[in-house]
Amino acid sequence: MPKLILLRHGQSEWNLSNRFTGWTDVDLSDKGRAEAAEAGRRIKAAGIEPEFYFTSYLTRAIHTLQIAADAMGRQWVPVDKDWHLNERHYGALQGLNKADTAVKYGDGQVHIWRRSYDVVPPALGADDERHPRFDPRYKTLTADELPSAESLEMTIARVRCCWEEKIAEALRHYGDTLVVAHGNSLRGLAMMLEKLSPEAVVGLEIPTGSPWVFELDDRLTPVGNHYL
Amino acid sequence: MPKLILLRHGQSEWNLSNRFTGWTDVDLSDKGRAEAAEAGRRIKAAGIEPEFYFTSYLTRAIHTLQIAADAMGRQWVPVDKDWHLNERHYGALQGLNKADTAVKYGDGQVHIWRRSYDVVPPALGADDERHPRFDPRYKTLTADELPSAESLEMTIARVRCCWEEKIAEALRHYGDTLVVAHGNSLRGLAMMLEKLSPEAVVGLEIPTGSPWVFELDDRLTPVGNHYL
Repeated sequence: MPKLILLRHGQSEWNLSNRFTGWTDVDLSDKGRAEAAEAGRRIKAAGIEPEFYFTSYLTRAIHTLQIAADAMGRQWVPVDKDWHLNERHYGALQGLNKADTAVKYGDGQVHIWRRSYDVVPPALGADDERHPRFDPRYKTLTADELPSAESLEMTIARVRCCWEEKIAEALRHYGDTLVVAHGNSLRGLAMMLEKLSPEAVVGLEIPTGSPWVFELDDRLTPVGNHYL
Repeated sequence: MPKLILLRHGQSEWNLSNRFTGWTDVDLSDKGRAEAAEAGRRIKAAGIEPEFYFTSYLTRAIHTLQIAADAMGRQWVPVDKDWHLNERHYGALQGLNKADTAVKYGDGQVHIWRRSYDVVPPALGADDERHPRFDPRYKTLTADELPSAESLEMTIARVRCCWEEKIAEALRHYGDTLVVAHGNSLRGLAMMLEKLSPEAVVGLEIPTGSPWVFELDDRLTPVGNHYL
């Protein structure tokens, strides 16, 4: 019976300045690095030995995984980096301070963008230098795949692809699997595993740096879950 | 026309104490970490953007790659870790100081073990705690694959498998490819690329931390090579 371990990356440099990050590739803060090492120590102390790793294309998640793998003494384990596990794309809000955004658009509107299931924030213009089409890591994505802004629903729809095509396969063929990703992409995995409603997933807060372990049966249905 | 970049990991903690390392999983020294970052900066400065990474199962190579990828700003590039790229297995010599080994076995014998093509050093006993069969990272290797000691020839025979089945495929399908590995596994790749004789490959010294770039034609035959 394989285990799936979800880990949200630790504090980033932009969490400190309270800005919308999304696909912006900011690195971990010192606190975030310490959280990652502590997460690895907890996984090891629980006697869990992941046989496969997944992470996103974003440095804060990749570094969290590398630091946790060091702490586990399991640096050699295969890793699949997949943009489908990226954070929700926050469109034109990316880079803006959350307080300034509230002043500009109003608290109510910002709350809707942050806490609704299917509302899409303002899109990045195709010529905006922040658009992912200018980033070499996304150069092979189809036009349909490349987001200009995403609702939580859109984020979860792409996370589903990674779950069905890759993560489920790794659980079947390798065994215990660790996914290091982001608040909203992990909400997507939790929604699928726990059959959460849109209302429940919007209200779900996943703490940073705390490994969340799902014990699965042989159809990969959770029979229990707990944080380490 | 893809490029293949070979990079030997930087100084390890055991290089400092002059011990036979082989498959012993020692980490980089501070100097080794600095060499790795410098190697990444040189690859970036040369305008090379690897689209695929290979490394071994050994932490000093994995960390060299991670540090170089950070310096290139290309942390998201897919990586395949393969034990076939591990350092030569030095058998029962692993962990011994080179000077002490010379006292014990004689300078001539140690020179033969280190500098011959097909001589195998003393094997690890199957019950020796240093034997790789006790290491979880090698638990799925067949009995034939799992070494107790290797000649350079045996090392190169397994490196050939990784070249033919994986590295050549990555060059065809992804483009420029970076391989971060060890003195003897990289000798194997250089031997295949440059059609070196056993005598020539034994005399080949690959410097640490210096990216070695091979320009390849469409049959993956080198048309030139240089160090950065």
